[in-house]
Amino acid sequence: MKKKKKVNAAILIIGNEILSGRTQDKNVAFISNWLNLNCGITVSEVRIIPDVEKIIVKNIKLLSKEFNYVFTTGGIGPTHDDITAQSIAKAFKIKYGYHKEAYKILEKYYGKEKFNDGRKKMAKMPLKAKLIYNPSSAAPGFITKNVFSLPGVPSILNSMIENCKKYLLKGLKVHSSTINLFTVESNISKELGLIQKKYQKFVDIGSYPFFRLGKIGVSIVSRSTSKIKLSSVNKYLIKVIKSKKIKILKI
Amino acid sequence: MKKKKKVNAAILIIGNEILSGRTQDKNVAFISNWLNLNCGITVSEVRIIPDVEKIIVKNIKLLSKEFNYVFTTGGIGPTHDDITAQSIAKAFKIKYGYHKEAYKILEKYYGKEKFNDGRKKMAKMPLKAKLIYNPSSAAPGFITKNVFSLPGVPSILNSMIENCKKYLLKGLKVHSSTINLFTVESNISKELGLIQKKYQKFVDIGSYPFFRLGKIGVSIVSRSTSKIKLSSVNKYLIKVIKSKKIKILKI
Repeated sequence: MKKKKKVNAAILIIGNEILSGRTQDKNVAFISNWLNLNCGITVSEVRIIPDVEKIIVKNIKLLSKEFNYVFTTGGIGPTHDDITAQSIAKAFKIKYGYHKEAYKILEKYYGKEKFNDGRKKMAKMPLKAKLIYNPSSAAPGFITKNVFSLPGVPSILNSMIENCKKYLLKGLKVHSSTINLFTVESNISKELGLIQKKYQKFVDIGSYPFFRLGKIGVSIVSRSTSKIKLSSVNKYLIKVIKSKKIKILKI
Repeated sequence: MKKKKKVNAAILIIGNEILSGRTQDKNVAFISNWLNLNCGITVSEVRIIPDVEKIIVKNIKLLSKEFNYVFTTGGIGPTHDDITAQSIAKAFKIKYGYHKEAYKILEKYYGKEKFNDGRKKMAKMPLKAKLIYNPSSAAPGFITKNVFSLPGVPSILNSMIENCKKYLLKGLKVHSSTINLFTVESNISKELGLIQKKYQKFVDIGSYPFFRLGKIGVSIVSRSTSKIKLSSVNKYLIKVIKSKKIKILKI
């Protein structure tokens, strides 16, 4: 069996509505969790950019070189501000026009009479792109080189993501383990720092404060591609925490 | 009176927990809305990056050159994975160490006995940084050149943001206006495209589908720094929508 390697991805959120704060993004958390859980792919960078062609082109060029995969969300609908497809075609110098298969899918879905110019626009994309089928609303996503283009509406994106799986290399899944404590970070920061230093080659330890029932707590999150190493670091963490008489929460 | 200009900013979210999807970011929408509403500053790019020094340094250098302001969130707490302050000092080649005023604030807050090493770490930052006072949990944010560093916990960040105001140039506020319709985007996409083309110099029109009560709708969002032009484009949009017999929702 071929040994799995680390595979990474970037997410490029395209949309003025996210940048302006009008709309709360939900796609980053969903895609990142899905990629790690289903494909062992780690999201290493996210960018949120406006609906401006030259900015999309620049980012597609850069991120597609730097990461194994790029996932774009938004800008593939029927309106004038949906310019993701044409921008990706430009970035890769690929012809842009009606994609035969996408055109057929959309024409069948809407029926010839209701297949107006707006709807036809959703069949326009980089030619020879592979399609990502859309069980919610027909308009397909598409894959151009290592760039996967999905819609911005979370419910539609969520329904399509499984259709990306067969095109993705499988990497090393990152396992994680969380210990929740009722304490403040500074009570445990010294010990955490030492443990992280000792195991830094194979485990990443993060510390995140939380507030619950009027009390302050800390989540210690350890991550590793090795389940065995994760478990042994976790045991060690619990031992150290107990020696400091800090209460561990059962959740 | 000096004529106001466009002022922009980038947001740099620093944190493995956001990238991995474990934690849903809420700071982008909050900061972006606050900046526009209170200072007339437009957020033009957002990046989410891991807790890795060389990546933070690279992004601080780049974004601080490209935008009027950079807002960082996360990585200013007491634990080993909090490396924002040292990374910013490195990016700007400024000395990093105990900031006298921050040290005093924290020592007073915790009391000399409880002011342990973890807590002291929160007083370490680029020397001569201006402080952003924190009414929630004392540990201050800080301003290094044009970079504003805030914590990652939304409730604490929200309580501090007003203290950034006096250090920010005021730009042209972007006003927005939304028309909600019960229709599909493709029914109106042609007209919207033509209207956007006609008014593209001073109004940005965006179109965003939504689902409500089992029905599909579209929000038409127009944005402009001129209230008068926004209002006149809005009137024109309503006229065109009515001529197509599409129902406008009152919200």
